[in-house]
Amino acid sequence: MPRLVKARSKKTGLPPGALVHIGERRAEKTRITLLEYDDAQVEEREIKDFRECPKLEGKPTVTWINVIGLHDVELLQKMGDCFGLHPLVLEDILNTDQRPKLEDYEDYLYIVLKMLHADDRTSEQVSLVLGPNFVLSFQETEGDVFEPVKERLKSGKGRIRKFGADYLAYALLDCIVDRYFGVLEKLSEGIELLEEQLVATPTRATLRAIHSLKVEMILLTRSVWPLREVISSLQRGESPLIKEPTTLYLRDVYDHTIHVMDTIETSRDIVTGMLDIYLSSVSNRLNEVMKVLTIIATIFMPLTFIVGVYGMNFEKLWPDVAEPWAFWLVMLAMAGIGLAMLAYFKKRKWL
Amino acid sequence: MPRLVKARSKKTGLPPGALVHIGERRAEKTRITLLEYDDAQVEEREIKDFRECPKLEGKPTVTWINVIGLHDVELLQKMGDCFGLHPLVLEDILNTDQRPKLEDYEDYLYIVLKMLHADDRTSEQVSLVLGPNFVLSFQETEGDVFEPVKERLKSGKGRIRKFGADYLAYALLDCIVDRYFGVLEKLSEGIELLEEQLVATPTRATLRAIHSLKVEMILLTRSVWPLREVISSLQRGESPLIKEPTTLYLRDVYDHTIHVMDTIETSRDIVTGMLDIYLSSVSNRLNEVMKVLTIIATIFMPLTFIVGVYGMNFEKLWPDVAEPWAFWLVMLAMAGIGLAMLAYFKKRKWL
Amino acid sequence: MPRLVKARSKKTGLPPGALVHIGERRAEKTRITLLEYDDAQVEEREIKDFRECPKLEGKPTVTWINVIGLHDVELLQKMGDCFGLHPLVLEDILNTDQRPKLEDYEDYLYIVLKMLHADDRTSEQVSLVLGPNFVLSFQETEGDVFEPVKERLKSGKGRIRKFGADYLAYALLDCIVDRYFGVLEKLSEGIELLEEQLVATPTRATLRAIHSLKVEMILLTRSVWPLREVISSLQRGESPLIKEPTTLYLRDVYDHTIHVMDTIETSRDIVTGMLDIYLSSVSNRLNEVMKVLTIIATIFMPLTFIVGVYGMNFEKLWPDVAEPWAFWLVMLAMAGIGLAMLAYFKKRKWL
Amino acid sequence: MPRLVKARSKKTGLPPGALVHIGERRAEKTRITLLEYDDAQVEEREIKDFRECPKLEGKPTVTWINVIGLHDVELLQKMGDCFGLHPLVLEDILNTDQRPKLEDYEDYLYIVLKMLHADDRTSEQVSLVLGPNFVLSFQETEGDVFEPVKERLKSGKGRIRKFGADYLAYALLDCIVDRYFGVLEKLSEGIELLEEQLVATPTRATLRAIHSLKVEMILLTRSVWPLREVISSLQRGESPLIKEPTTLYLRDVYDHTIHVMDTIETSRDIVTGMLDIYLSSVSNRLNEVMKVLTIIATIFMPLTFIVGVYGMNFEKLWPDVAEPWAFWLVMLAMAGIGLAMLAYFKKRKWL
Amino acid sequence: MPRLVKARSKKTGLPPGALVHIGERRAEKTRITLLEYDDAQVEEREIKDFRECPKLEGKPTVTWINVIGLHDVELLQKMGDCFGLHPLVLEDILNTDQRPKLEDYEDYLYIVLKMLHADDRTSEQVSLVLGPNFVLSFQETEGDVFEPVKERLKSGKGRIRKFGADYLAYALLDCIVDRYFGVLEKLSEGIELLEEQLVATPTRATLRAIHSLKVEMILLTRSVWPLREVISSLQRGESPLIKEPTTLYLRDVYDHTIHVMDTIETSRDIVTGMLDIYLSSVSNRLNEVMKVLTIIATIFMPLTFIVGVYGMNFEKLWPDVAEPWAFWLVMLAMAGIGLAMLAYFKKRKWL
Repeated sequence: MPRLVKARSKKTGLPPGALVHIGERRAEKTRITLLEYDDAQVEEREIKDFRECPKLEGKPTVTWINVIGLHDVELLQKMGDCFGLHPLVLEDILNTDQRPKLEDYEDYLYIVLKMLHADDRTSEQVSLVLGPNFVLSFQETEGDVFEPVKERLKSGKGRIRKFGADYLAYALLDCIVDRYFGVLEKLSEGIELLEEQLVATPTRATLRAIHSLKVEMILLTRSVWPLREVISSLQRGESPLIKEPTTLYLRDVYDHTIHVMDTIETSRDIVTGMLDIYLSSVSNRLNEVMKVLTIIATIFMPLTFIVGVYGMNFEKLWPDVAEPWAFWLVMLAMAGIGLAMLAYFKKRKWL
Repeated sequence: MPRLVKARSKKTGLPPGALVHIGERRAEKTRITLLEYDDAQVEEREIKDFRECPKLEGKPTVTWINVIGLHDVELLQKMGDCFGLHPLVLEDILNTDQRPKLEDYEDYLYIVLKMLHADDRTSEQVSLVLGPNFVLSFQETEGDVFEPVKERLKSGKGRIRKFGADYLAYALLDCIVDRYFGVLEKLSEGIELLEEQLVATPTRATLRAIHSLKVEMILLTRSVWPLREVISSLQRGESPLIKEPTTLYLRDVYDHTIHVMDTIETSRDIVTGMLDIYLSSVSNRLNEVMKVLTIIATIFMPLTFIVGVYGMNFEKLWPDVAEPWAFWLVMLAMAGIGLAMLAYFKKRKWL
Repeated sequence: MPRLVKARSKKTGLPPGALVHIGERRAEKTRITLLEYDDAQVEEREIKDFRECPKLEGKPTVTWINVIGLHDVELLQKMGDCFGLHPLVLEDILNTDQRPKLEDYEDYLYIVLKMLHADDRTSEQVSLVLGPNFVLSFQETEGDVFEPVKERLKSGKGRIRKFGADYLAYALLDCIVDRYFGVLEKLSEGIELLEEQLVATPTRATLRAIHSLKVEMILLTRSVWPLREVISSLQRGESPLIKEPTTLYLRDVYDHTIHVMDTIETSRDIVTGMLDIYLSSVSNRLNEVMKVLTIIATIFMPLTFIVGVYGMNFEKLWPDVAEPWAFWLVMLAMAGIGLAMLAYFKKRKWL
Repeated sequence: MPRLVKARSKKTGLPPGALVHIGERRAEKTRITLLEYDDAQVEEREIKDFRECPKLEGKPTVTWINVIGLHDVELLQKMGDCFGLHPLVLEDILNTDQRPKLEDYEDYLYIVLKMLHADDRTSEQVSLVLGPNFVLSFQETEGDVFEPVKERLKSGKGRIRKFGADYLAYALLDCIVDRYFGVLEKLSEGIELLEEQLVATPTRATLRAIHSLKVEMILLTRSVWPLREVISSLQRGESPLIKEPTTLYLRDVYDHTIHVMDTIETSRDIVTGMLDIYLSSVSNRLNEVMKVLTIIATIFMPLTFIVGVYGMNFEKLWPDVAEPWAFWLVMLAMAGIGLAMLAYFKKRKWL
Repeated sequence: MPRLVKARSKKTGLPPGALVHIGERRAEKTRITLLEYDDAQVEEREIKDFRECPKLEGKPTVTWINVIGLHDVELLQKMGDCFGLHPLVLEDILNTDQRPKLEDYEDYLYIVLKMLHADDRTSEQVSLVLGPNFVLSFQETEGDVFEPVKERLKSGKGRIRKFGADYLAYALLDCIVDRYFGVLEKLSEGIELLEEQLVATPTRATLRAIHSLKVEMILLTRSVWPLREVISSLQRGESPLIKEPTTLYLRDVYDHTIHVMDTIETSRDIVTGMLDIYLSSVSNRLNEVMKVLTIIATIFMPLTFIVGVYGMNFEKLWPDVAEPWAFWLVMLAMAGIGLAMLAYFKKRKWL
């Protein structure tokens, strides 16, 4: 189970806006890529530092700066100064224990999201800053999530190079939300597997699997709910940074998050139901075990008693008991009692 | 259990609006029917392709184009171009893993719904596009759901040919919602059957039946909830494409969906209650099994002990124990102990 | 358990507004009574058919037409034509599987309600149409629910003849809501009875009683919730058909429905709690049964073993074992072991 | 458990506004006290009847009439006429099975509340009528709840005599809400007691105590929820009868009701959790009982079998078995088996 | 478990605004510190009494008065008079059984909060009064929670001395909310520990730990929910006392409380799930215990019976039974039966 809260104790007592990187260092070195494009051309280059700020104001092109690795606090501080980011924004970019949210700082929008890795089921914090003609994106680890966007930008296919920075931000959001479907597919497979186990032979492992599936879905809900809010307020188009035609596309992403949430909730209901079934199954099996015990005891206890009676020290009393017919009579009687018991259990549907 | 999410992995990394058919190919070939009508006449014909777009603008008649089978991406692309459909609409028509929704594109409304097949309990995606004087409908499989509408159109009975395209869309919606009642009737029968089993002899199969009924209802809820929203916003008459008199009829369909939702929720509550009853029943039966075991053990264990005492090697001690009266005395004592035990159990209401 | 949905299959494929009576025929023949009154006088007469429509427009009196029995579709069709009822209203009057609702058709209000019969716990659909100076009421069966209103009209007591048609509609609603209190009283008695059983000796029958009480309350909730909405929107006085002084009275009925709902919800919570208590009781009793078994087994198994040891074929070994003191020693030892066991169980609070 | 609904059957069929006292007669005779005060002086007197109405209009003083005992319908009818109360208000004052509510009749506010008696946990209905310069209060039984207000009025301490009738109404409300804290303190003690029992030795009585605590809290919720609504709408100051400075005080009472509700909800969650713990405890103890049984059976069943083998009639076969060393060998072997079993149970943590 | 309500009985019958300290006396003596600062300088001094009111009106500096210890009612009364606090505010400061709330008295805002002590998990009430150029803070005990703010004020680092009283109030709020994260970290560790225990060997102590964790979270929710409301309404900036730039910082604190609430809710879901797992585990283990018992009984009961048969007094009947081959035959047969039983249990997966 992932930790529910990351150690914020590093920051206790610090003034707001103090820049401390909270979270593990997951990328070896900070890598910054700048992509500048308009309808006609694309240019990509690496950025080493921000001693000189890139001049974007008034430029007709769209600029996308993608930062990988968040531990180099100083570099990010300078970058923030270049783009006029509020100290609280920088603080939140560095503190990777954020809840997804959207904040409108008038000059730019600040968006925090959780990106899921379907394979190892960890999550990573991605921050986006959407300005009038630029998008800044911040990732914790090197990853391929934004590759498709980069390729579409380079190849010039589709609408992406014709639209502005808001469409680029949408395209990045879309990539992140798409990841959720991969996780859902895995979850869905897990549920099917459990259903089969539940019908066949539920074991302790089944129980543990149900539990961890449930915990996973609780944690998933936790990152999807605020995601929905973020995209919902983006799509309502209240900020002038989001232009009319892009809202249609954002509505599409919004539909996807609703779909994701819906599926998670449905899954939770189903998994909760499975726990009840599991409990009932266990009770059922207990019942069966007890029936076997009771049948055995009910048959053999009376018989052992009868046999015991014949072992009592009264043998000299009636010499007859030592006759063969007496022996066979007792045996017959005991067989009769045994069969009667079995018939009784048959009638009560225990067999 | 149907899959909770369809494999969207085909689409990962594709730009938005990319046309890929998601879902199984369920119709052998794409079949397109065009129905043109006004108050006075009806004309029906098949359409092979959309090399020429049907000219509808300014026409006084209403045109209904019904498409069956969604795998021919190219054909649908052309059709979309003819009617000026937004790329996202075409994408959603082809992606059959949609949540029911209504989207207003000003020139037309786009509606996605789930249609249920009561017999095999599968669901199918149906898309409707409502323009000023036309309705486009898209089905996955050949089916008779829209037959009654077609017949009413041809026979000219009722109001259908007097009203516009919005009434036609309403009529199609009504057909789809009516299907839900069929499914509810089946569900309701299933519940009654389970109630009877629960009272008579609940078995493991009962448990499994309760579980699958519950899952089915969870999945049903999932398609009805958004359906309600769709029809609710249609009926509020916010779009100029929906005229005043039709809203009354849409309110009627809305009532039906509320009725459906209500019934599903009631059923869920009842089925959840059945699970509790089942669990209690199992516990109850365990109790009964244990009582039988305890009664048998409590009667025969002391008796076997007594019998054992008489089997001890002390027989030479008192020759008296070998006398008949001693034997009968012991027997009597044992019968007395047995009866006392039975009386005790009778008193405690175990018998 | 009443059916959750009535067979609507009769209607599949029919155009909206098609008149089909859904539900059992519960009254032998349709009986129509007309009551015309103003402050000064009352006149009552039977109506056989609607070949001639009663002329009400501009009349200063209030007219109440009460219809019992809904199977005569033709007659109701003509009646609907007389009063200018929308086809959908007529359809809903005939289809007795409606959810309570209020529909505003500007010229008149259409209200559907469920009336409960406290004795056999069945429900009946009652429709009301409130026009400017008339009220139409439709019942499925002959019944005395509206008798008090009729009598107050005839005797001229109270305010009823001084107020208009809206007050008459209120009076009828009040009668129907009052019926719910009768049902609640019965439910409340049922709960008290169950509480007593639960404390004394819970049996399988208790479990079944809890379950059916719960189902009954679920179904009750289902008809009360929409009733509340109906009366709430009536009382808000949005329709000009409801005059100011009547809204005060409607607020009173509204309070009653809230009270009903409240009581049902409270009852549901209590009954749900009873199920938990039942389950705990069953577990408790299982515990007690097992303790008896364990005590018996723990005492007699070791003793039987000791007795068995003395039955082993070693008697020639030590002649002493056949001495009286040896026998009494063993007996004493066994009594000691038995008492020690009992003391141990006493200490663990099993006895 | 108190009845969920009081017998309203007395009233079935009566016109609205018909005056019938519903509830037990709890005060011996109706007692009416009138208190008239302004900043300078206070005057108190008893009122026997309302043959003459007290003239209040235009008076600069505030008048408080407190009525104890509601069975004298005629007297209350006259009183209602004096103050121009709507028939529905009088009806509700007499019908003590009301849900707490606030009704605005423009000339006056009508407030119904439930007052709790902490000692015997019964509740009583209190009605308040707040006019421009008077407050009428109606209690079922003689009680001291309003004593502190009376004393403050007489002594002239605090602000009470400086403010108007609205402040008086607030002071009375405050007294009633304060009572709830007393009940909460008792509940809280009950919960603590149960927690201790649960940890020490949960018995059947614990279960019953949990159940009745839960029922009590359900019933409490039922009277607090509407109380909250009442005070919330008073405090919003929508009626001109409530003046600005009093709303601050009403906000304070509102905070108290929120606090009460909060505590009840928290308590319900805790008590619900206790039931789960109880169930788990019972299961746990069953487990322990079964372990004892299993350990005993597992040790003595094999031993008894071995002993039985030596009791078989083969003794003439090997004379050796009658040798001392053989006996001790068998004994040793049995001791070994017993110890091995104990070691096995130790290892599985059963001991 | 902390008490759910503090004894308010001290106050029953007192007029509103009566000053009584409710809660334990937790600080030895009341200590009052005054801090006056502007951008250029800071001055700190102790205040002994309020015989003279500090003159703040019109001063350009910000003044922060921090009071520790609330039992000196007289002193606080005087202080309240100095700052023109409403009697209800003073009453609430002294009554430490408040629900967190924000009250707008136009001239100042009154804020009540609960501060948590992570180490001993108790909570303390902190009151803040925010005026135009001053902040009053009231704590129950001496503590270091506001130390960081004091230090930042003295050192002049950050923005704190450049902003006004509203920013100071924000800084204090931030300190209090930060404390919640410490508590969450501890809770989170507790959950992880329990998860491990649950997987390894769940005992009675695990159950009790789950229960107390749940109760703790219920109580936590209770103080965080209203905290959220408080900060939410502060951040909406409805009061002119909160200036524009500070709202951005308050939004940040608001995010933190949302984060806290989210984590608590997630934790509650997980802990609730753990209880189900615990119950299932107990049932599972019961099952296993019963299987051992049943296996032992099923093997040895028939064998003991056979052995008993050979102990019957028929030995003179067939001298053969005393032959070695007969003995070995019986032994072989019994071994066969035992092995068959084991094979049967193997097949049913009991072994």
